[in-house]
Amino acid sequence: MITAASNSRVKRLVQLNQKAKLRREENVFLAEGAKMFLEAPAEKLREVYVSESFLAKCSFRERLEQTGYEVVSDAVFARISDTCTPQGILCVLEQFHYQPEELFRKKAPLLLFLENIQDPGNLGTMLRTGEGAGVDGVIMSGDTVDLYNPKVIRSTMGSVYRVPFFYAADFKEAVCRAKAAGVSVYAAHLRGKDSYGQQDYRSGTGFLIGNEGNGLREETAALADTYIRIPMEGRVESLNAAVAAAVLMYEAHRQRSR
Amino acid sequence: MITAASNSRVKRLVQLNQKAKLRREENVFLAEGAKMFLEAPAEKLREVYVSESFLAKCSFRERLEQTGYEVVSDAVFARISDTCTPQGILCVLEQFHYQPEELFRKKAPLLLFLENIQDPGNLGTMLRTGEGAGVDGVIMSGDTVDLYNPKVIRSTMGSVYRVPFFYAADFKEAVCRAKAAGVSVYAAHLRGKDSYGQQDYRSGTGFLIGNEGNGLREETAALADTYIRIPMEGRVESLNAAVAAAVLMYEAHRQRSR
Repeated sequence: MITAASNSRVKRLVQLNQKAKLRREENVFLAEGAKMFLEAPAEKLREVYVSESFLAKCSFRERLEQTGYEVVSDAVFARISDTCTPQGILCVLEQFHYQPEELFRKKAPLLLFLENIQDPGNLGTMLRTGEGAGVDGVIMSGDTVDLYNPKVIRSTMGSVYRVPFFYAADFKEAVCRAKAAGVSVYAAHLRGKDSYGQQDYRSGTGFLIGNEGNGLREETAALADTYIRIPMEGRVESLNAAVAAAVLMYEAHRQRSR
Repeated sequence: MITAASNSRVKRLVQLNQKAKLRREENVFLAEGAKMFLEAPAEKLREVYVSESFLAKCSFRERLEQTGYEVVSDAVFARISDTCTPQGILCVLEQFHYQPEELFRKKAPLLLFLENIQDPGNLGTMLRTGEGAGVDGVIMSGDTVDLYNPKVIRSTMGSVYRVPFFYAADFKEAVCRAKAAGVSVYAAHLRGKDSYGQQDYRSGTGFLIGNEGNGLREETAALADTYIRIPMEGRVESLNAAVAAAVLMYEAHRQRSR
């Protein structure tokens, strides 16, 4: 059992929580909580840490034995946890490496294009909602917050394991590639004339979602085939980015389920 | 100009950020940022504080002169601000006191019933989305997070000024009262058979949304006229509470705009 906060592995885990660069170098990310352990793809799971008190009352000990795990004191677990209410189990997993082609090749894909999203909770929520709405992939601009940030991982509620995604070094090129593959690209935009509910999303569809404060860059929005708007009553000027994405994705899902 | 962090007014503002009880006693709340100042109802505005550097480059100085304001040093402003990136302007406003009757009296109202929502960002986002979707009022259970929490206020993006709301000491009674007034109440629930898109929300409609982790209490859900479900693909078990509320409210809005 690891009981010393000065232990080099403890220090490394603390660093992995904080530093995207280190996560990238080691090709790993951290995921905390029983749900994140139980849903983790076996081939991705590298290390598992459980706190003493978590282990004492763990209901899936057999699964833990199969995987292998390391016990740490509760005090040490509090250090390696990214949250105020530590979950008692933390996994080190290998990062995902999807090929862009995997996302564009599908027949009539439903795609989400995210430009410069900065709030970790928003990004995680978009992955979670995306899986729920049947999204085939999420493409992010290089300046979007790191998806392996622990706050993002937590708010995906496990969807990070199942929704294909990638960061496009050249975001506009990625949008163009989707268009070339037959995907119609929609930008929620103030200049949009048609309400989002008036379009047909049953063929290949991509939604462009921009930064929380500034929306889409003009040159990115210009790539869209169609500008749409989400109608807003009162004095509301925009919706939260994750909410806007949810409304669009679920409208596409509703149409595709008919 | 206030330059001392030990100033009694500075101390009071810090406390007002932190303590719901004090806000209640003084019947006030704090709202930070230019947008929150500019959209504030004049009759609610009690005090305005601006930082030295904000004032120097302020583009609505005339509005400030009309209202009256107090200048504080940048260091003091950083203390009274609730955020890591202080906005330079902070208002003290009077709390709202809506009568439940105002919400139920409308013809075919669209209402949101929130039980035990704990995340401030979620609550604020629901108010913001609610205004956008044309919601007539938000009714909250007594154990919902304080709406005047600065994090809630910030994420409403001004909707707190315009969407009527109240905390129901007896939440179930409030739901029953809406039903008695002709409102059909829907609960998003695992036992729901019909997809949310198959219902008609053009007459009086209320959506019941439960706690982020545990959903609705069984005895609350039992009050609903209809259980509905939001279809979810993959392994998603639930959506973020603010996302679920958004999908339902915007479906109601879509139907009501036809």
